[in-house]
Amino acid sequence: MDAMTNPRADRVKDVAKLAGRPSRTKRRQFLVEGPQAVREALQAHRDCLNAGGEPIVDEVYASRECLDRYPELAELLAGSAAQPGGSGKLRIASELVLAAMADTVNPQGVIAVCRFIDVPLAEVVAAKPRLIAMLCRVQDPGNAGTALRAADAAGADAVILSASSVDVYNPKTVRSTVGSLFHLPVVLGVEPAEAAQAFRKAGVGILAADGYGALNLDQLQDESAARSFDQETPEAAYPLEAPTLWLFGNEAQGLSTQELELADHRVAVPVYGAAESLNLGTAATVCLYASARAQRRS
Amino acid sequence: MDAMTNPRADRVKDVAKLAGRPSRTKRRQFLVEGPQAVREALQAHRDCLNAGGEPIVDEVYASRECLDRYPELAELLAGSAAQPGGSGKLRIASELVLAAMADTVNPQGVIAVCRFIDVPLAEVVAAKPRLIAMLCRVQDPGNAGTALRAADAAGADAVILSASSVDVYNPKTVRSTVGSLFHLPVVLGVEPAEAAQAFRKAGVGILAADGYGALNLDQLQDESAARSFDQETPEAAYPLEAPTLWLFGNEAQGLSTQELELADHRVAVPVYGAAESLNLGTAATVCLYASARAQRRS
Repeated sequence: MDAMTNPRADRVKDVAKLAGRPSRTKRRQFLVEGPQAVREALQAHRDCLNAGGEPIVDEVYASRECLDRYPELAELLAGSAAQPGGSGKLRIASELVLAAMADTVNPQGVIAVCRFIDVPLAEVVAAKPRLIAMLCRVQDPGNAGTALRAADAAGADAVILSASSVDVYNPKTVRSTVGSLFHLPVVLGVEPAEAAQAFRKAGVGILAADGYGALNLDQLQDESAARSFDQETPEAAYPLEAPTLWLFGNEAQGLSTQELELADHRVAVPVYGAAESLNLGTAATVCLYASARAQRRS
Repeated sequence: MDAMTNPRADRVKDVAKLAGRPSRTKRRQFLVEGPQAVREALQAHRDCLNAGGEPIVDEVYASRECLDRYPELAELLAGSAAQPGGSGKLRIASELVLAAMADTVNPQGVIAVCRFIDVPLAEVVAAKPRLIAMLCRVQDPGNAGTALRAADAAGADAVILSASSVDVYNPKTVRSTVGSLFHLPVVLGVEPAEAAQAFRKAGVGILAADGYGALNLDQLQDESAARSFDQETPEAAYPLEAPTLWLFGNEAQGLSTQELELADHRVAVPVYGAAESLNLGTAATVCLYASARAQRRS
């Protein structure tokens, strides 16, 4: 197989265009860069095909050095090529070509072109989820990626981004999810009101993470722990072990009045120190881990 | 007072040089940019002088628009100028001058030149701290800042950065702490072994956050909760309510073998989903909040 060596070739330009939202939206494809993220994409691709689903990875561009260094990539690619519908489209490319394709300065030798993987809201609701994170108007690619990774770590069943949030397929967001984008279903472009209505119908409670919330997350956690020890407790303000949709707001302004009104309760994450507020990643981590612990104990 | 309007003036260049580590180290000064961070610096400055300590803020450069828009800055500055040793060195500067001084593209109208505020290890140890976070070889300015902010939110008594960590006075780190740098004592340039020895002597337990740890943080939390409900429990592996130094490792490699050996226990943060690992901010948040909750309950 001839290596691609011309960074000005049309195909190189076509791949590079995926760093921009118009090309992504039109082609419904996005860039995945670096060995770890591409490995996660190829694993998701394999699992999806095995389950009778659609392919995820359309093309992989890698340097020979990278394939030598990460033999699991070559194995995944070989396995993928052998599958019906699998991507056989591995092209060896020079580092110059890869740099011209990539959004990062250093794509570490490998880039994949993947198909959009977001799913419809109805599909997530139908799967009877117990823990869902919704990001409302989150603007920073890194924050969105970090929150998505925290949701993955906490075992959330899905992440939803509101219509006016940053594009989850932005290369910076993809990068900062460190593969988590391929681990759990992501729903895009939904208004908070629509999501709240759909989940409430399905019996899911709705909590808003809000620094000014009347309920304190510690109180909910203590009540949940007490119940697990069969302690007599007054009726809980909200049973943290219940199926829950958490709403998280914009990094600067938090949740809007309308968004807050969608929730059953507004819950404040305790700030023990002098920090004025929590950043989105910290708040999402504390809230989602609190729910996950309560749900696992019940 | 005449406004500074020449972005090529020597004083402007002098301030701008603080974006680089050599100038910072030589002058023991650093840049603080934007209204929120400068407000935190001025409040810390005021509190420090009131407590008989050294000044923190040496100079403030602000646009007239910024002072009009954030009257609390002008008040803090006026109060500060009236104090003995207080900084009266407010200079009005044009947006062009501020942009030339700043590390950010948009310093939002105000920049402060502050003195280094880190404290010696012995001072932190002598204050009988209950919760300390140590960052070992953390390289990314944003990660270090986020971890520091999480430590502040969890009410940690101090943060320690190992000698080979990113410079906490890097403008990017300062920015990502969102003021938390001024909320709790920070110790710099200490080797993990030295810190471990000093805290162990002071009766502080040492836990290493480690994905491969033999102890699970959930187990420690459950044991701690059970004790608080007077449940009979087997002897705890580690009482989470005890004074604790948490060690967090480099974002890519985690803690080294030598660093792990400094700890009484290696504790894994549970990953409920498919995420391979937690990022530093998430791990620090979960660990420090778990200790803080246990300590507050006991």
